[in-house]
Amino acid sequence: MQANHKKYTLSELIQGLDVKLKGDPQCIITGIGPIQQAQVGQITFLTNPLYKKYLETTAASAVILKEEEALDCPVNAIISPNPYYTYAQIAAFFSEQVKAPTPGIHPSAVLGEDCDIHASVTISPYCVIGKEVKIAENVYIGPGCFIGDGTVIEADSRLDAHVTLYHKVKIGKRVRIASGVVIGADGFGFANNKGAWHKVPQLGSVTIGDDVDIGANTTIDRGAVEDTIIENGVKMDNLMQIGHNVRIGANTIMAGCTGVAGSTVIGKNCMIGGGSCINGHITITDGVMLTGMSAVTKSILQPGLYSSGVVGVVPNEEFRKNNARFNRLGNLMDRVKSLESRLKELTERVK
Amino acid sequence: MQANHKKYTLSELIQGLDVKLKGDPQCIITGIGPIQQAQVGQITFLTNPLYKKYLETTAASAVILKEEEALDCPVNAIISPNPYYTYAQIAAFFSEQVKAPTPGIHPSAVLGEDCDIHASVTISPYCVIGKEVKIAENVYIGPGCFIGDGTVIEADSRLDAHVTLYHKVKIGKRVRIASGVVIGADGFGFANNKGAWHKVPQLGSVTIGDDVDIGANTTIDRGAVEDTIIENGVKMDNLMQIGHNVRIGANTIMAGCTGVAGSTVIGKNCMIGGGSCINGHITITDGVMLTGMSAVTKSILQPGLYSSGVVGVVPNEEFRKNNARFNRLGNLMDRVKSLESRLKELTERVK
Amino acid sequence: MQANHKKYTLSELIQGLDVKLKGDPQCIITGIGPIQQAQVGQITFLTNPLYKKYLETTAASAVILKEEEALDCPVNAIISPNPYYTYAQIAAFFSEQVKAPTPGIHPSAVLGEDCDIHASVTISPYCVIGKEVKIAENVYIGPGCFIGDGTVIEADSRLDAHVTLYHKVKIGKRVRIASGVVIGADGFGFANNKGAWHKVPQLGSVTIGDDVDIGANTTIDRGAVEDTIIENGVKMDNLMQIGHNVRIGANTIMAGCTGVAGSTVIGKNCMIGGGSCINGHITITDGVMLTGMSAVTKSILQPGLYSSGVVGVVPNEEFRKNNARFNRLGNLMDRVKSLESRLKELTERVK
Repeated sequence: MQANHKKYTLSELIQGLDVKLKGDPQCIITGIGPIQQAQVGQITFLTNPLYKKYLETTAASAVILKEEEALDCPVNAIISPNPYYTYAQIAAFFSEQVKAPTPGIHPSAVLGEDCDIHASVTISPYCVIGKEVKIAENVYIGPGCFIGDGTVIEADSRLDAHVTLYHKVKIGKRVRIASGVVIGADGFGFANNKGAWHKVPQLGSVTIGDDVDIGANTTIDRGAVEDTIIENGVKMDNLMQIGHNVRIGANTIMAGCTGVAGSTVIGKNCMIGGGSCINGHITITDGVMLTGMSAVTKSILQPGLYSSGVVGVVPNEEFRKNNARFNRLGNLMDRVKSLESRLKELTERVK
Repeated sequence: MQANHKKYTLSELIQGLDVKLKGDPQCIITGIGPIQQAQVGQITFLTNPLYKKYLETTAASAVILKEEEALDCPVNAIISPNPYYTYAQIAAFFSEQVKAPTPGIHPSAVLGEDCDIHASVTISPYCVIGKEVKIAENVYIGPGCFIGDGTVIEADSRLDAHVTLYHKVKIGKRVRIASGVVIGADGFGFANNKGAWHKVPQLGSVTIGDDVDIGANTTIDRGAVEDTIIENGVKMDNLMQIGHNVRIGANTIMAGCTGVAGSTVIGKNCMIGGGSCINGHITITDGVMLTGMSAVTKSILQPGLYSSGVVGVVPNEEFRKNNARFNRLGNLMDRVKSLESRLKELTERVK
Repeated sequence: MQANHKKYTLSELIQGLDVKLKGDPQCIITGIGPIQQAQVGQITFLTNPLYKKYLETTAASAVILKEEEALDCPVNAIISPNPYYTYAQIAAFFSEQVKAPTPGIHPSAVLGEDCDIHASVTISPYCVIGKEVKIAENVYIGPGCFIGDGTVIEADSRLDAHVTLYHKVKIGKRVRIASGVVIGADGFGFANNKGAWHKVPQLGSVTIGDDVDIGANTTIDRGAVEDTIIENGVKMDNLMQIGHNVRIGANTIMAGCTGVAGSTVIGKNCMIGGGSCINGHITITDGVMLTGMSAVTKSILQPGLYSSGVVGVVPNEEFRKNNARFNRLGNLMDRVKSLESRLKELTERVK
């Protein structure tokens, strides 16, 4: 729940934004609420048509919405070509003003030799940092992080508590990494010899571009030969697994619990639904959208919206019948084939 | 493997329980064993019919079971209307008597200003705790935990090692959180503007009720506007992902590797099978059971047992054929339709 | 990206290996590259037929490959019966010579009473180690690890940063555990009584054999009664969930994001594809291979390659049609049955 000691007029909130205000610019806004629960003094937004039904009766003091919804808005309307983006900009006013931490290295932090840490960097208690690590200006390292030898973190990036970066990882600018993330652990490479598995050295590392977000407990493995690469602007949710030598293109967004097997290349501007599994050694071109729980077994060479399998729950009894029917499909096909030839024969007979 | 230096008579073990003993109350029990391997001196239980076949020959000294199985029990029988619950109560006698840690704050713990920590609290080494944190009586905080500003933990809760609670999280009473859990990281909200994704501030937090259990490396994101809410008595397994603004109803139990996308509401007393994916912005009513690997795409409004898809492995060759047949279903339907009209025509012709 | 200050002749690299060299034993190799990008001075390998097309034009100075590919190799050829294994052996020359850490216990490490730590062990900063812990020779414990009371780690094992081992866990020799792994958290056992779930004490622990590898953020729960057991030579990827009382047989290899529910036994020499879900209380025999995203609901009693479900993405529109067709399979079967009886009747009529 948000703290409520902030106050802005609507005209303050929209200053500089690409929006039109229909209503009172002096209206005081003290917080944010969802459209169906917002109260007087709160601002809300309408982007999902599922929530349109709440517009008429919302108690919010203002709604961010599209031109075509504005007529139905009973309160102050902030008309935007992209209401969700406008909401993101306005919500920032009500975000916890986490006071910028006083820069400095906590005395408990353990640093290796020959590190290059900018004076504006914050390193929290109980961090352990290897040798020859380079951390640029305004980076924030949360409590209990581990950073391996030779790793580089560019300016304005943020590691929350308990992040692990192995050695020689490169993190770009303005990257945000949530707690529990592990970047640069060895890729999963084993060669079988006479029944036993032998480790294949993982000689590459991981390169993360600028403006990347990585969700809690996600793992990104280091490359076998070359680096695993996450390009600029990629957004990843929690509990993702990115295998060695994967490359993910700029501005691709991936929802949680998705795994990408080794050496696969995903293009730019893709949207990957949660719980998906993507095979190794394949290519997904730019602009591909996958719905949730997609099982991608082969390359996808044309942009578009793709899906796999049979989804959507039904009562268990029906599910059991459907599974049985699925397993009798071969029989069904044979029977249709037989019907066709018998019917043809009969038709000729009665000519 | 359990340590074996405890001894109880059957009558001590069942004192106060809602059970009947058929056999010798003075029989000495020194430990627990699975029915097929238990030895003299051990107590076991029978709940899963798969294991009934072992009852006749079990070497255990006593078996906890239902009335209707008691006749077949060759040894001391503890007859219970709910044998698994009775087992849970008796097993507690043989649980590691983890000596209650001496309360106190380890000198290495780093605490922010204005915390309110009860004198009975244990804070282990290398914890980092923000400012204005409130921790009630008998809470145990394991080594290396991070607790953000303004977070509240109610009485008798336990955080194992390496738990991360972000700022302003609320944890109820008697909550158990396993290692690697991350609660309160930012929800996955990004608004697209001209191809780039912009972070939507996540202004809510997470509220966890009383008697909740959360398994290792599970992640629960903070809400976008309001809190993400886990109600009393919810039990979650490992490696779950709970998106922002999800609400999970009281006494719902969820098996591992399950993901719930943002703003979905799950009712009370649900049972969610492992590896399930639950879409965002939907409602699952009270008393819904989902088998494992369910892909829930729409709201479920009636209680009952639900499932999705095609499950159960078959030899790969058959699987490939089934996949091909599945993709030819449209063709099969067309052929059946054509058969129907040709047969009708023929039938009329031979009238 | 690899550091490039190492130099070996081909004859040095292959000394003692089961290979034949076709080419110049004095050729200098300074690093490793993928076949399609390798440059002069680099060695590469060919194992995946997908990459055969790059052989003719590779700029590498040497290629590790099978006899039958050697004729097409335009550069020095290292002919091996098992090129990937040979590659693993040669790549080790170019692996980061992570200087063996100076053994010793960092002064910040907190140790309980009665530990038995060999003098050759490295314990990094901010580790917290319980009482009666035994750590054998040459074990490396990374920064910020937690090791519970009574846990035993055999010789030459390695825990990366932020690993959690609960109490009484047994870790074999030469085991490698990546960051964020949690071993020995309580299994997921709850007994329902009058609607509320009661914890079932988890009395067993976890036993990990020799030469096991465990990937980042994987969780392995302690047994309910007996131990959860991972046998020698098992290789596990990232973000796996292993339930209580599971047993995984020697030299089985399991790809990421796979979950195994409680009490299931997986045999030796199995290969489990990523994203699979394996039901509880079942048995998978030795030598079973599962393709990715398999949903295993019943025991598998014969070795072989198995799969489940419908995989492979199609355009979303086609997917929607297929889902609808799947749900009409019962109707289709009825129509085929009706056609069969009507055709039979008609056939008899026109006899």
